[in-house]
Amino acid sequence: MNFCSHCGAPVVRQVPPGDHLPRYVCERCGTIHYQNPKLVVGCVPEDGGRILLCKRAIEPRRGFWTVPAGFMENDETLQQAAERESHEEALASVEIGSLVSIVHVMHAHQVHVFFRARLAAPEFGVGPESLESKLVTEAEIPWDDLAFPSITFTLRRYFADRAAGSERYHYATFDYRSR
Amino acid sequence: MNFCSHCGAPVVRQVPPGDHLPRYVCERCGTIHYQNPKLVVGCVPEDGGRILLCKRAIEPRRGFWTVPAGFMENDETLQQAAERESHEEALASVEIGSLVSIVHVMHAHQVHVFFRARLAAPEFGVGPESLESKLVTEAEIPWDDLAFPSITFTLRRYFADRAAGSERYHYATFDYRSR
Repeated sequence: MNFCSHCGAPVVRQVPPGDHLPRYVCERCGTIHYQNPKLVVGCVPEDGGRILLCKRAIEPRRGFWTVPAGFMENDETLQQAAERESHEEALASVEIGSLVSIVHVMHAHQVHVFFRARLAAPEFGVGPESLESKLVTEAEIPWDDLAFPSITFTLRRYFADRAAGSERYHYATFDYRSR
Repeated sequence: MNFCSHCGAPVVRQVPPGDHLPRYVCERCGTIHYQNPKLVVGCVPEDGGRILLCKRAIEPRRGFWTVPAGFMENDETLQQAAERESHEEALASVEIGSLVSIVHVMHAHQVHVFFRARLAAPEFGVGPESLESKLVTEAEIPWDDLAFPSITFTLRRYFADRAAGSERYHYATFDYRSR
């Protein structure tokens, strides 16, 4: 951030009065530009015991596998975001179920949230952000070619819970920054 | 948003190629400025059966009661955010427990997340964003003077679960916009 999005003047990075963290502050109009974690929302769509995966057509991690997921938009719920991403990435209609995971992705300033889901119909395809999509059994999950650690974590917990006949939710925190 | 925070040129609102929603786009440098919901995180701190409430010293809803809660920052987990807000608003050290609620506040473009918590010590005070703080029994909750619907929803579910001896999580969606 270099300029104030409100008035266009250059911003400076400083701790505002009464605050405890440095922020981008406009010295002309006084606007404080807070930066906060973004929500990424997805689901694990199941159909007849198999899971719907998509191969990413876009960076980061083009060519690697994921469940449908993406940035939450304004004016939608978490569940609606997960449904929308399934439509966009795999042309799939899903019914969203219980919470599987909440993953803090510290290096990306993101919080990832994943739900259990079912395909509303046994139909899916390849959306513009995907190269390929397919239903796979647990044994067929390409563990070494998953796109993100949050996907690996979520699928591991998903299958462990399914084997145990439970629907718990799980937390994880990843931080890939060097310190 | 009027200006590009990257290069300082005026932005226009348009649907970028391949996208489906209007965004603020810089016609000079091409940066797309996405706007996404923000996370607000809090907890319900309990001590000896009583709940810690704070009276807000700041707008919105100055003078109304809340549990400790506020905007999640980068570089912290949801649990750390809830702990920090308890420190800031009530000078209280808390141990964060299970998830109580996830509330979509559509009109504010926010997602509120609340945890169960316990005071780590029976000590608390009045932070700079509070006018007053106190421990109250369920019967003493000022239901008509709570600051936000997400607080009311969370406390209702908290007490119902406590009475039932369970620790479930709950969703709600509020939208106070006229349409």
